[in-house]
Amino acid sequence: MNARFVTSTLSAFLVMGKGEGIMDISVVNFKDKFKKIHEQHSYKIIAQMNNYHLKLVKVQREFIWHKHPETDEVFMVIDGKLQIDLRDKVLHLKKGEMVVIPRGVEHKPSCNEECKILLIEPAGTLNTGDAGGDLTFTELEWI
Amino acid sequence: MNARFVTSTLSAFLVMGKGEGIMDISVVNFKDKFKKIHEQHSYKIIAQMNNYHLKLVKVQREFIWHKHPETDEVFMVIDGKLQIDLRDKVLHLKKGEMVVIPRGVEHKPSCNEECKILLIEPAGTLNTGDAGGDLTFTELEWI
Repeated sequence: MNARFVTSTLSAFLVMGKGEGIMDISVVNFKDKFKKIHEQHSYKIIAQMNNYHLKLVKVQREFIWHKHPETDEVFMVIDGKLQIDLRDKVLHLKKGEMVVIPRGVEHKPSCNEECKILLIEPAGTLNTGDAGGDLTFTELEWI
Repeated sequence: MNARFVTSTLSAFLVMGKGEGIMDISVVNFKDKFKKIHEQHSYKIIAQMNNYHLKLVKVQREFIWHKHPETDEVFMVIDGKLQIDLRDKVLHLKKGEMVVIPRGVEHKPSCNEECKILLIEPAGTLNTGDAGGDLTFTELEWI
């Protein structure tokens, strides 16, 4: 039973338990959704595509080094500026920009000022990846 | 051998054949990418996340009714306005908005004026879905 199997099984569970109608087809406005997020570093699910979650988060911190051995991960900046340190270079993203961090690649996101981010990754992907620790966020809600 | 198996096999083939380094990690700026698109209705791949492609397209037409029996599909409006007709309602999207069209749901996108769209769906997903026909676009290039 490898890591990918565990992840996909967990994802299937989360998909089934998502708590709103699969067939609820409605337009998502990023600004409106961000108005519903009152705390930083609290990841909120706004949409689901197959077994992937699209999540919004307001960030203002230097995060920890981690990687996701089982999946690529999309970071898209909706507002503000995001820095992502890789082991061999530093990425600077601003509003209207995105990057795919490939599976297994260590990265450390950070924002000096509050940044609004859209994340796309399989349901059940943990924010701290393989690193774990106190910053691991598991209380994801739909907004 | 069901449709999903065929799709995932096709996707795996496309992932392997993508023609640029899996480990090329670079920031994608939507405006800059759109400057490289000179024709309407010509879908361009800008990023890959696992077996999913992120595609940009400039649209100005009424498209055909179709569905994707094997996958959900994300439409995100980068600039302009997009209408998506469903059989029981009409969705109106503008810049900063997105929607997930669930697998199997018939939809008909249209734009009176040019609209710039980001699509996210499994590699190999055809624009015309199960409908086929002359508007099927298979010449996807990376930009």
